[in-house]
Amino acid sequence: MSLTLKTKIKPTALAIGLAALLPLSASAADADTEARIQQLEQQVRTLLEKLEAQNTALSQQLNQQQQQINEKVVPAKGAVIATTNGRSLSFKSVDDAYSFQVGGRLQADAAFYDADDNNFGDGTAIRRLFLDVRGTFAKDWNYRFQYDFARPGSSDSSARGIRDAWIQYTGFGAKRITVGSFKEPFGLEHLTSGLYTTFNERGVTDLFSPDRHLGVGLSSGGAHWSAAVGVFGERPEGDVASEGDEGWDLTGRFSYAPLAEPGNVVHLGVAGRYHKPEDSTNELSFSSRPESNITGVRLIDTGVVPGVDDFQALGLEAAGIFGPFSVQAEYVATRLNRGGALDDVDLSAWYAYASFFLTGESRAYKADEGIIDRTRVARPVGSGGIGAWEVALRYSNADLSDANIIGGELENLTLGLNWYVLDNLRFSANYIKVLDVDRPGSIYDGQDVDTLALRAQIDF
Amino acid sequence: MSLTLKTKIKPTALAIGLAALLPLSASAADADTEARIQQLEQQVRTLLEKLEAQNTALSQQLNQQQQQINEKVVPAKGAVIATTNGRSLSFKSVDDAYSFQVGGRLQADAAFYDADDNNFGDGTAIRRLFLDVRGTFAKDWNYRFQYDFARPGSSDSSARGIRDAWIQYTGFGAKRITVGSFKEPFGLEHLTSGLYTTFNERGVTDLFSPDRHLGVGLSSGGAHWSAAVGVFGERPEGDVASEGDEGWDLTGRFSYAPLAEPGNVVHLGVAGRYHKPEDSTNELSFSSRPESNITGVRLIDTGVVPGVDDFQALGLEAAGIFGPFSVQAEYVATRLNRGGALDDVDLSAWYAYASFFLTGESRAYKADEGIIDRTRVARPVGSGGIGAWEVALRYSNADLSDANIIGGELENLTLGLNWYVLDNLRFSANYIKVLDVDRPGSIYDGQDVDTLALRAQIDF
Amino acid sequence: MSLTLKTKIKPTALAIGLAALLPLSASAADADTEARIQQLEQQVRTLLEKLEAQNTALSQQLNQQQQQINEKVVPAKGAVIATTNGRSLSFKSVDDAYSFQVGGRLQADAAFYDADDNNFGDGTAIRRLFLDVRGTFAKDWNYRFQYDFARPGSSDSSARGIRDAWIQYTGFGAKRITVGSFKEPFGLEHLTSGLYTTFNERGVTDLFSPDRHLGVGLSSGGAHWSAAVGVFGERPEGDVASEGDEGWDLTGRFSYAPLAEPGNVVHLGVAGRYHKPEDSTNELSFSSRPESNITGVRLIDTGVVPGVDDFQALGLEAAGIFGPFSVQAEYVATRLNRGGALDDVDLSAWYAYASFFLTGESRAYKADEGIIDRTRVARPVGSGGIGAWEVALRYSNADLSDANIIGGELENLTLGLNWYVLDNLRFSANYIKVLDVDRPGSIYDGQDVDTLALRAQIDF
Repeated sequence: MSLTLKTKIKPTALAIGLAALLPLSASAADADTEARIQQLEQQVRTLLEKLEAQNTALSQQLNQQQQQINEKVVPAKGAVIATTNGRSLSFKSVDDAYSFQVGGRLQADAAFYDADDNNFGDGTAIRRLFLDVRGTFAKDWNYRFQYDFARPGSSDSSARGIRDAWIQYTGFGAKRITVGSFKEPFGLEHLTSGLYTTFNERGVTDLFSPDRHLGVGLSSGGAHWSAAVGVFGERPEGDVASEGDEGWDLTGRFSYAPLAEPGNVVHLGVAGRYHKPEDSTNELSFSSRPESNITGVRLIDTGVVPGVDDFQALGLEAAGIFGPFSVQAEYVATRLNRGGALDDVDLSAWYAYASFFLTGESRAYKADEGIIDRTRVARPVGSGGIGAWEVALRYSNADLSDANIIGGELENLTLGLNWYVLDNLRFSANYIKVLDVDRPGSIYDGQDVDTLALRAQIDF
Repeated sequence: MSLTLKTKIKPTALAIGLAALLPLSASAADADTEARIQQLEQQVRTLLEKLEAQNTALSQQLNQQQQQINEKVVPAKGAVIATTNGRSLSFKSVDDAYSFQVGGRLQADAAFYDADDNNFGDGTAIRRLFLDVRGTFAKDWNYRFQYDFARPGSSDSSARGIRDAWIQYTGFGAKRITVGSFKEPFGLEHLTSGLYTTFNERGVTDLFSPDRHLGVGLSSGGAHWSAAVGVFGERPEGDVASEGDEGWDLTGRFSYAPLAEPGNVVHLGVAGRYHKPEDSTNELSFSSRPESNITGVRLIDTGVVPGVDDFQALGLEAAGIFGPFSVQAEYVATRLNRGGALDDVDLSAWYAYASFFLTGESRAYKADEGIIDRTRVARPVGSGGIGAWEVALRYSNADLSDANIIGGELENLTLGLNWYVLDNLRFSANYIKVLDVDRPGSIYDGQDVDTLALRAQIDF
Repeated sequence: MSLTLKTKIKPTALAIGLAALLPLSASAADADTEARIQQLEQQVRTLLEKLEAQNTALSQQLNQQQQQINEKVVPAKGAVIATTNGRSLSFKSVDDAYSFQVGGRLQADAAFYDADDNNFGDGTAIRRLFLDVRGTFAKDWNYRFQYDFARPGSSDSSARGIRDAWIQYTGFGAKRITVGSFKEPFGLEHLTSGLYTTFNERGVTDLFSPDRHLGVGLSSGGAHWSAAVGVFGERPEGDVASEGDEGWDLTGRFSYAPLAEPGNVVHLGVAGRYHKPEDSTNELSFSSRPESNITGVRLIDTGVVPGVDDFQALGLEAAGIFGPFSVQAEYVATRLNRGGALDDVDLSAWYAYASFFLTGESRAYKADEGIIDRTRVARPVGSGGIGAWEVALRYSNADLSDANIIGGELENLTLGLNWYVLDNLRFSANYIKVLDVDRPGSIYDGQDVDTLALRAQIDF
């Protein structure tokens, strides 16, 4: 490709010949008729020639400009247009069949703990550092690769960095087929991006969330509903299974929104999950930190539950958005079916919260996926506003004790304050009060923990 | 930079004055000669003035448009043009001296094993998740950074994520000098991208492949040949060697293609490698899974071969493409020279396969590098076609037993089916039958293993 | 968006009618006056009509071109312009409020050691493989994400890949507030990019450098000064602290440059750091390799210094650039305050070097940050030049022995040669002579080590 810039055109050249003709009209009145007519004929002839010459020059010039427009503006086959929404960068081919987008997110955290026992560990952490690329091919095929660079450094070796890594076909209209690593369809807050949760950490029901796994899913949705189902393996990444067949999940979810207008939403959802553990171990475990992620302390923890044949989970969701006011609640009940003489184990958790935008914004909702979307700041900082300010209060409750498993019961109260500086820049402070830990035999039994959790978050 | 869009031009203004002159010609016939001549003179004068005025207006307007074209279309020094081939996004400076490209690939796998022994482990895995950037500086300098995000999670700690990471000089015409981490020049399938291999996993000769290492290489090629040689260290990444000098390789390859037209190719190749192990250990080991990567089981395995002074490998390659029909075979013979009273060890492997495109496509070949290239789908899905369909059959044989080393012998038969939906989207199913494992003393001796391996693959 | 390219305009059409009028002027001289006047009137009428028609056609054509310019050049709301400086790719919105840039760097190393003891380990390594993205939102907010892919593979498990990961507010003019992971403000060479250091590895004072941590900082600068202060946690990434509160730092730096013109710089700097170790361990350790990073050998090493209450460091910097000649020196003194009966420990290090560009370039300086910037090559290779050639000599001295801590003393001399092929492509050779190791009781005491360290480096 060679876009040499030729500015050869000199439009002032057109004016030269015409100026020479003007003096003749001033002295014409006194000449005899014959001379005057001859002069007129000569002038008309010259006028014609000039008009002709002007025409030729203009034609050339216009042609040249048109050629420049054609060549330069659409410089090559496959031209791509770059645009931004002020946050992220998008590329689209001129035929709309191809698109590409690069994005990322950063959550930088600090937390301070006040507890009877002093091993909670004040500190700082990068909670998430995502980069992701996504795009479209041949109009109907989407893909997304997303990696969390904050994960490989985790001391929890089972947590790895690959997040979304999928291929999706959308050629059937509203129906989507997805293959690869993606979130299993279970739980309103689990499926909502970690960027858009009201509190720094998801509610305590998240301890049962399946997260992302390699699988195949079918999903669809409309103006008032969403539905999704998928089959998933248990291993998200390139691990080598040394023994036994991998566990697997069958997970499905349906949501219905009788009201689904901006600022006026009622959401109801139900989800179910059947999990078969890795066949050689038949083990599962569940635990939870105090809804804060800096500390490594798990206030409630079943430890390894042996002999699990399979595991079922049922999730119920409800949410409402009424202008600046919003409520949300989830309940998850699970059953671990165990073989032989071992008792089945029933565990459960729920949370409920209310939030209010002091600055009048509303939480956003995507009905066709049944999830919460990005809050749009009405008056961003730097555009004459003070951003959006949101206060919220959450009660959480988890019960990990049943049969001979004494994982413990946990009750939390969280007060949250969010300052959305821009649509994609937010500072949050959460005060988390552990109301009760009922876990006989553990040093955390009856522990009184107060946490101040701070977060700075940006995404693009 | 400031591209304010000024649409000040109102070309219709030109037409106003001229329309006022037209009525005079209708009533001119009855006037006396003098008056008519005067009127004519006046009209010609007016015409001249109008033409002059039009000229001035046009000049301004054309200048303004030219300025807009100049300023906006090439808005700044260093303008870059974005284009796509429908798969990936490319950026090029207008002087062609600079280019940049971002790419990636995803291979999502699942495999199911049927074996006498039950510890093969059905499961799923992300086989490869690459992101890479590459580009050109100052016309003659190329670079490429490529990372496999599926690797850091590998339980094999010696496998890390950095793949290509090199700087290349191309200022000598067809000759290229490369410095950094890149593939050692050995083996047709080893050098062919993992995106373009006919079967999900490379043939069993790949157990001897040197992979990528840090080194310096010189390569060249023409319409019918390629040649490459390089010296490489043993460590691909930022490891700290705790003791002893690193091992190193001297590797070279030459390929010749008497036929090298699209759909009509005969390829012959030979490669040699001299390897010096890390001096403090002098150890090497070779092993192979059943040409499927989900299981961790290595059906044949030399274990650590001690006392290796050096290691030599010879590779022979042949391939033919005849329209939709294709054949390919490789043979690798190695010798481990051992010091003292230890016997030298000779190991070898080979494979041969045939493939056929039911939909008529041909495998593509790059003669100047002596490798297989991307298959172009004649009638992609979504453009009225059913994509490309390919069937293939491979026989593989490896012998890792010699002297007192009993690594075992392996024979596999693989039936492959590939569906290329688009040029860059492919679904594959491989059925792999282990014909024989001859490994006395191992639990895998005589093991009968059948594998169904599935893959979804996309790249951009 | 749909940029269909319509080339409907045929400017040659304008010339058709005018040519038909020309013959009449040739035969007009012999006709009678009346006929000639009538003909003239007719001609003027025709001329008017033609001029009118031309006007209409031109107006249409100009309007059409203007529309094409408007629609195509700024094709959509949020259009983004891509440019390159020949190295990296930048995207900017037309209103300058948004920008995005992707970059990276590769340093490929090899080193050869000649020592009395033979366990230094010749070898190769990718020293750094960075990718980074950075950008601007809403004009006043910057961010940067930077990851070193060469780090996760390090055997030193405390070194992780996240480098810069911050959000910055610049709405207060020269003052910047930064939140996230970034370099603590301490040390001229520590703060200078690893791409621009004169020698392959930073001088020995770097063993005291705090590197990057999660924190909050305030910085500012002018034509002759820079100032920065910050509070930082101790943990750069998503680790889980299992016990005890994280350590933290309070760090500040001021630099003053009485001379700060291109090629004529005098820089003076002072920095201080207060460090509180993790409260449960109260341990610190300091060590140094022989200013070469391939080997794992640490010639001097305090081992774990127990019982440290807190740690203070003072850094002094001086540098001068006088045309092609440059000098630079840093000194760091530290005190480890220890509780109980344990003696306080005073450790220190310093280096001084001179460099000279044989090809006449000058090192570049950024006064408002008090750091060294990229050297611009006057005559790059490929543009008729031989690049820039620089020779340099450094003396380094570290003393890690005090009280009952016998970390050892080290003296190094380094001779460096840099070939800058392009502004962003450099090959370097360092010869490092260990003059003395005084570390009683260690096998490295009195060790005589000569190192040849090679590097190829590119960035974009």
